[in-house]
Amino acid sequence: MDSHQLFGQIQSKTSYLCIGLDPDPEKLPVHVLSLDDPIFEFNKQIIDATHRHCIAYKPNIAFYEALGPRGWESLQKTLDYIPKEIFTIADAKRGDIGNTSALYAKTFFQYFNFDAITVAPYMGEDSVRPFLDHAGKWVVLLAHTSNPGSADFQSLESKQTGRKLYEEVIIKARAWGTAEELMFVVGATQAEKVASIRALAPDHFFLVPGIGAQGGDLEQVSRHGMNAQCGLMVSSSRAILYASAEKDFGEAAGKEARKVQQEMAGYLDRYL
Amino acid sequence: MDSHQLFGQIQSKTSYLCIGLDPDPEKLPVHVLSLDDPIFEFNKQIIDATHRHCIAYKPNIAFYEALGPRGWESLQKTLDYIPKEIFTIADAKRGDIGNTSALYAKTFFQYFNFDAITVAPYMGEDSVRPFLDHAGKWVVLLAHTSNPGSADFQSLESKQTGRKLYEEVIIKARAWGTAEELMFVVGATQAEKVASIRALAPDHFFLVPGIGAQGGDLEQVSRHGMNAQCGLMVSSSRAILYASAEKDFGEAAGKEARKVQQEMAGYLDRYL
Repeated sequence: MDSHQLFGQIQSKTSYLCIGLDPDPEKLPVHVLSLDDPIFEFNKQIIDATHRHCIAYKPNIAFYEALGPRGWESLQKTLDYIPKEIFTIADAKRGDIGNTSALYAKTFFQYFNFDAITVAPYMGEDSVRPFLDHAGKWVVLLAHTSNPGSADFQSLESKQTGRKLYEEVIIKARAWGTAEELMFVVGATQAEKVASIRALAPDHFFLVPGIGAQGGDLEQVSRHGMNAQCGLMVSSSRAILYASAEKDFGEAAGKEARKVQQEMAGYLDRYL
Repeated sequence: MDSHQLFGQIQSKTSYLCIGLDPDPEKLPVHVLSLDDPIFEFNKQIIDATHRHCIAYKPNIAFYEALGPRGWESLQKTLDYIPKEIFTIADAKRGDIGNTSALYAKTFFQYFNFDAITVAPYMGEDSVRPFLDHAGKWVVLLAHTSNPGSADFQSLESKQTGRKLYEEVIIKARAWGTAEELMFVVGATQAEKVASIRALAPDHFFLVPGIGAQGGDLEQVSRHGMNAQCGLMVSSSRAILYASAEKDFGEAAGKEARKVQQEMAGYLDRYL
């Protein structure tokens, strides 16, 4: 999927919501747990209820890996169930030496057929490059994450350039891939930084985690982060997935997703 | 397994060799491919031939993930087959926000029962902490990796401290975990840096990739990196696993592992 198709979806749904499919067995509604494949059944109902309001799904791979071979199967069934026009991101945060990254790329882009994968930058260009070698697929590179620990290293200032590590990541990575193959993770929890990050990468899509349970500000992110193609996919998972722990969890998730979508429609009107 | 048990094994085997179990389907001997579970059968013969000469096995998870659910099963069988006294490292390079890292920790420490996992530091303390919460298990944190891209960000110098990013990682992480729960990845390809890194973390074990196919210098690493408990696990994979592509691959791997072990015995004599 290219950025025009992604923007087309944003326009037709007036949404830039990405839903994290992070099915935590400890939070699933009790009645789901007795089904044959609880993870898939949960995801299926979430997808049924939310796919009109979102443009992307982002399964966090940890939740599937934790279940062993069964988890891999639930992930495959989930991917197959997601409507074809919706963008899919493997939230895997992989990053390893070249031949190993090539294998991860094969797993997520070919075996599972994801559109995109999140990648960690610590090991540098040759750890990212193999993911960029897949035409039509996307790398979503961690730049400024939304967790408290992001300050530990990402904000370290370079003696040579005066820029912070996450800025160096964006500047170097811009030379590795175009805005048609590379996105950046830019957390919503420090919304005041979104404007300066947008200045560094005017054309790239940002995947923005941290609204909802993590407390980021959607209005701020939208105001400072939007570009002419929207350029944002704002991700929420817990607030939508676990809006209800009862039999109506699908309906509750749908309502929550629609609420975010309507807020987004307003920001698209105002800031696009 | 604690560091004394690890050192005990190093002394009894006069080896600090860690073998990377990275079974690449494109490099496996042809006759193995027709077996029911080629990956496990390959690993089994490698383990049979090498376990006397090494103290740790390090499966790189990418090679198993790439095969889907079947790969997970081959990994489980491999783990079960490794003799109990040998240290096991999941080379997974994971790192995510806290609740996700907790799931990865559960997967590798509980489901697979690995002794250790490699973790990427980019997201900071709260992404590493959940791995440290498992008593008796180890985090092997990426500090200075052996690939060419390691220079892209790891060598960035801090304006505030004058130290490089990989030095900052070691200094900060020393406060997160003791030398009984935390190791560092220190690549062999820039052996001249090993002495200064050892000065920053005198008591911690280092996992050292990059000898063999990547060209690192074992003598230099041993001379500059060894501490009173050896403090090194030096990793090799391709040079051992693919020493022969014929039916004698096990025997050839055993010979190659023994050759490295004998070199190591000499350095233990000289530098310990």
